[in-house]
Amino acid sequence: MFEYEIIATEGRARAGLFKTPHGALRTPVFAPVGTQATVKTLTPAHLKELGASLVLSNTYHLYLRPGDALVAEMGGLHQFMQWPSPMLTDSGGFQVFSLAQMRKIDDDGVTFKSHIDGSTHHFTPEKSIAIQENLGADIIMAFDECSDPNDHTYSKIAMERTHRWAERSLKAHIRPDQALFGIVQGGVDPDLRAVSAEFIASLPFPGIAIGGLSVGETKDEMHRTLDVVTPLLPENKPRYLMGVGTPEDLINGVARGIDIFDCVLPTRLARHHAAFSSTGRLNLMNAAFARDPRPIDESCDCYTCRTFTRAYIRHLIVAKELLAGTLISIHNLRALIRLIEEIRAAIANGTFTEKAPQMLEQWGHNAKRGQTV
Amino acid sequence: MFEYEIIATEGRARAGLFKTPHGALRTPVFAPVGTQATVKTLTPAHLKELGASLVLSNTYHLYLRPGDALVAEMGGLHQFMQWPSPMLTDSGGFQVFSLAQMRKIDDDGVTFKSHIDGSTHHFTPEKSIAIQENLGADIIMAFDECSDPNDHTYSKIAMERTHRWAERSLKAHIRPDQALFGIVQGGVDPDLRAVSAEFIASLPFPGIAIGGLSVGETKDEMHRTLDVVTPLLPENKPRYLMGVGTPEDLINGVARGIDIFDCVLPTRLARHHAAFSSTGRLNLMNAAFARDPRPIDESCDCYTCRTFTRAYIRHLIVAKELLAGTLISIHNLRALIRLIEEIRAAIANGTFTEKAPQMLEQWGHNAKRGQTV
Repeated sequence: MFEYEIIATEGRARAGLFKTPHGALRTPVFAPVGTQATVKTLTPAHLKELGASLVLSNTYHLYLRPGDALVAEMGGLHQFMQWPSPMLTDSGGFQVFSLAQMRKIDDDGVTFKSHIDGSTHHFTPEKSIAIQENLGADIIMAFDECSDPNDHTYSKIAMERTHRWAERSLKAHIRPDQALFGIVQGGVDPDLRAVSAEFIASLPFPGIAIGGLSVGETKDEMHRTLDVVTPLLPENKPRYLMGVGTPEDLINGVARGIDIFDCVLPTRLARHHAAFSSTGRLNLMNAAFARDPRPIDESCDCYTCRTFTRAYIRHLIVAKELLAGTLISIHNLRALIRLIEEIRAAIANGTFTEKAPQMLEQWGHNAKRGQTV
Repeated sequence: MFEYEIIATEGRARAGLFKTPHGALRTPVFAPVGTQATVKTLTPAHLKELGASLVLSNTYHLYLRPGDALVAEMGGLHQFMQWPSPMLTDSGGFQVFSLAQMRKIDDDGVTFKSHIDGSTHHFTPEKSIAIQENLGADIIMAFDECSDPNDHTYSKIAMERTHRWAERSLKAHIRPDQALFGIVQGGVDPDLRAVSAEFIASLPFPGIAIGGLSVGETKDEMHRTLDVVTPLLPENKPRYLMGVGTPEDLINGVARGIDIFDCVLPTRLARHHAAFSSTGRLNLMNAAFARDPRPIDESCDCYTCRTFTRAYIRHLIVAKELLAGTLISIHNLRALIRLIEEIRAAIANGTFTEKAPQMLEQWGHNAKRGQTV
């Protein structure tokens, strides 16, 4: 279980196969985010059709609602949300730091108030692992502390605590059918990141995540951090860049040795009427699309692009019809999954290095807002 | 085109086939309502899978947004919303009377203010037909005036105007690929209804609708009205009971000779967390369902019931996830379509009269709110 087989490499980019109890993941892989045990507005049938293989769900949210004990009673997360393929849960750490109120951190753990009802809760590494064991995802995360990347002093404290919590997470973890990943922290300080990468790599985790990125640092800082970290990680374990990213982040991340990505961006953009396309990000509310008979992206093979015009989707947006969000979510997720499939095929063919600049040229536009046709 | 072939009858109940340019409709048929060129939260793929054959859309809404000229430019309503099977549009009359503001009615037509932006518009029979020709549904409706069923004086005035408007609608209608249905009005007055049925039946409409029901009258009044009207209608034309209904309305309507139904109830209930079931209507927000591992209805064959538990759907509702509305809409529509399929099969087998009391017993519970398990 949890062997990571490398199929092909090109420079630091890798194509591999990560075996889990719910099937083998072909990496690199992009995971749609199903925060509350649902990828917003989509059915599992939609996710299967658009090529999703790994789905992430959030421990913090599910612990608060409906409760991890209830999910366990209903047969675990796969059964509860009817996702038959691999799943990943985070540790809840990031959400406690970004969403919860009145948090108090010490070496034992974090005390926080629920953003839903203000009730008080306490997370420790042991508690996070117990919750994640109840949820039952294939890949689970050590409890960590994410720092402000620009605060060196705090980054060091948070990193050191993350290391102690990594050891406690490992010790607490019992279920043999879950791969517990350690998390590298250290802000954007190369020295801290090197220390953290070496420490986490020294522990018997079957996979390693890189946390604390895409939280306010520059793209250069993200790339430099990856350039420090991934060379220090073992080749035979998958590497997961948490909460990243945009199409260009996927290309840049794979080039720096990343295997697993997740991000709310595709579904969040969809709720704001924005669509990825090979000609740049589109805001489909734009009046220019009122009579546009083209699909969102003529080069896309998703259900939305095979079926509907920009004019129709714009009408749904203007008429406040929820189907708009569903259709754009399908497209945006398919766009990223198609990109990662192309990246994987290029690595297998040994053409990724050659194609990456062109991919970046094509998809880089999607980082910007407001570009239309 | 627009032949109505009767396959089987049992008492006044009929099973038939109504040929349209987008395929033959097997009647009796229940049409989901796609007010703004979308059955709320569902894709056309969902509608196909749940067995929908006819979809209704609203002329008033589409005229205001995105505009019937735009829909025509995009290839018509079938193409615009990608529904390849038969479609029906209403005349806009009912919505003008129920939704629009500051309406002024005279023999020419109705002046009203848009509920969206307060702009002033004028509908006449000719205008309604022109809009419906732009939209391009297979079945379209004469422009009519719906009265308060309990106001006899107004019902008579509205009925007489509906008759004059029926003649003008017929005269205005050009497209040979659309079946224009006349509408019987007359409130709940049996004499007015008889006059109206005979008048509308005398005109060369390929189908006849019964309007002005399910607008505040009692069930008895609805049934008595149908008992007056349908015997006066020609056998060889389909009869459409507009805006009806509940599961029991379908059974009672078919028994009184109705072939076509439409209603927003299944999708509206879904948005309020209520689901039809063979054991009574369920409110899935109910805490009793928090750990309920059963599907909404164990006897249902829909995607939702084949896939998800009540516990999961309740979680989606409590967590305010839009997927809840999608899943319950799929179930509620399938429940009515399955019921109408069973009714049709029973008529074909000659067992409808025998089974109707049992069907009413089973489905009658769904008229009531709040019943749980």
